[in-house]
Amino acid sequence: MITKNELKYFVSLHQKKHRRQENKFLVEGEKIVKEGIISKYACEIVFTTNEFFSNNEELIKLIKQRQIKIEIIKNQEFKKLSDTKSPQGIAAVFVIKENKFNIRKFDNDNLIVYLDNISDPGNVGTILRSCDWFGIKNIFISKNSAEYLNPKVIRSSMGSIFHLNIYEDFGFEELSVLKQNGFKILCTDLNGKSIFSLIKPGKSLIVFSNESTGPSSDILNFADDKITIPGTGKAESLNVASAAAVILAQLTKK
Amino acid sequence: MITKNELKYFVSLHQKKHRRQENKFLVEGEKIVKEGIISKYACEIVFTTNEFFSNNEELIKLIKQRQIKIEIIKNQEFKKLSDTKSPQGIAAVFVIKENKFNIRKFDNDNLIVYLDNISDPGNVGTILRSCDWFGIKNIFISKNSAEYLNPKVIRSSMGSIFHLNIYEDFGFEELSVLKQNGFKILCTDLNGKSIFSLIKPGKSLIVFSNESTGPSSDILNFADDKITIPGTGKAESLNVASAAAVILAQLTKK
Repeated sequence: MITKNELKYFVSLHQKKHRRQENKFLVEGEKIVKEGIISKYACEIVFTTNEFFSNNEELIKLIKQRQIKIEIIKNQEFKKLSDTKSPQGIAAVFVIKENKFNIRKFDNDNLIVYLDNISDPGNVGTILRSCDWFGIKNIFISKNSAEYLNPKVIRSSMGSIFHLNIYEDFGFEELSVLKQNGFKILCTDLNGKSIFSLIKPGKSLIVFSNESTGPSSDILNFADDKITIPGTGKAESLNVASAAAVILAQLTKK
Repeated sequence: MITKNELKYFVSLHQKKHRRQENKFLVEGEKIVKEGIISKYACEIVFTTNEFFSNNEELIKLIKQRQIKIEIIKNQEFKKLSDTKSPQGIAAVFVIKENKFNIRKFDNDNLIVYLDNISDPGNVGTILRSCDWFGIKNIFISKNSAEYLNPKVIRSSMGSIFHLNIYEDFGFEELSVLKQNGFKILCTDLNGKSIFSLIKPGKSLIVFSNESTGPSSDILNFADDKITIPGTGKAESLNVASAAAVILAQLTKK
């Protein structure tokens, strides 16, 4: 049983303000909940519909083994909790893990990704998923980018947020520290060196910027190099998540 | 002036059934309308709000030069016409151009893209945009993929649909003709040869499949080769539009 007020409390986690106040976030869907359960994130509670509970023995067993509280709720209650049109019937609440910037954490890292002012949640989530695919561990996100705990970001990331170290509110202060510690700052831009002719850089941080505005002049001036993906067609640009995938594939290939 | 019934008629073009019945489709937004106007597609009518009309002299001049009818409508009427939350105030109706399959059309083509059962409109649109960026001209789309005239596809394509030859309801019949005419069928799959070790193939058709189901066994059996993008992280797969961008970048690079 869940009271109306409890339900209201968990629904409020759809909003950034409440997520930050409570230091918790809500995820949904079988795959993403499972990724969360087996990750290092602390899970507070799992909600399922009766139907999901009865038909997903394996996942339910896993949740029980980890001694996480399971609350079976009515379909109409689940609909309120859900952010999607056709809910799968499982959602979970996790505790936010704040990553604090400390340059020593990156001593053994060779490639960091920085999302600068990327406002579309689908793009942020898709880039996080690509980072996870290509083995990138540390991701920096600027203040004005979509929040990585936004339900749409989590959905597009397909649960990859649980595998990555994500640093928020990242800016020039941290960029400077990285630069002083030997990281080369590479900024993706429509004008720049072709990614295919780039000699594999050493320790680097790659900046992906907002599609419509492009990189700010501040970040362009700060960057050690500008890189681009050559195109021969009529499109004005690539989608930023597609561009990120091309560049990360190129920089991480063996 | 636009009557209620006329407005209703144009709004109905949001639905595939009506688009196909009327052989027309509706697009919106400054960039996409402009791409349509300067393309080979016939434009029937442009709708703008008073505000957009007054503030976009250049585009309005272009539309007038092409002798296309402009209808200035009220904001509340435009909202009904629009598929987005914050409409930009310009939309246009174009005539559908049907591309009929004929093998001779591909005599000089080296790389064709085939979207097999890709149901997410955002992914279809983003792949079309990447095709346009990398200079691919001919795209085949299977029956059960998202329709390329779906408003969400057009939006994600950023108007690239106007630059490409798109063939719909494509299937094994056409695939066979291409194969007989020297096209190698390459299917992207989680298991396959690394795209980075692939020797540049000659005339080829690349298949991108549905993310959740993967390529069907029929298409896998039909394909000459399977290709993949190696990953070292924990993500189960890449987003299909990201994967398409990586593969097209690799196959088209100079």
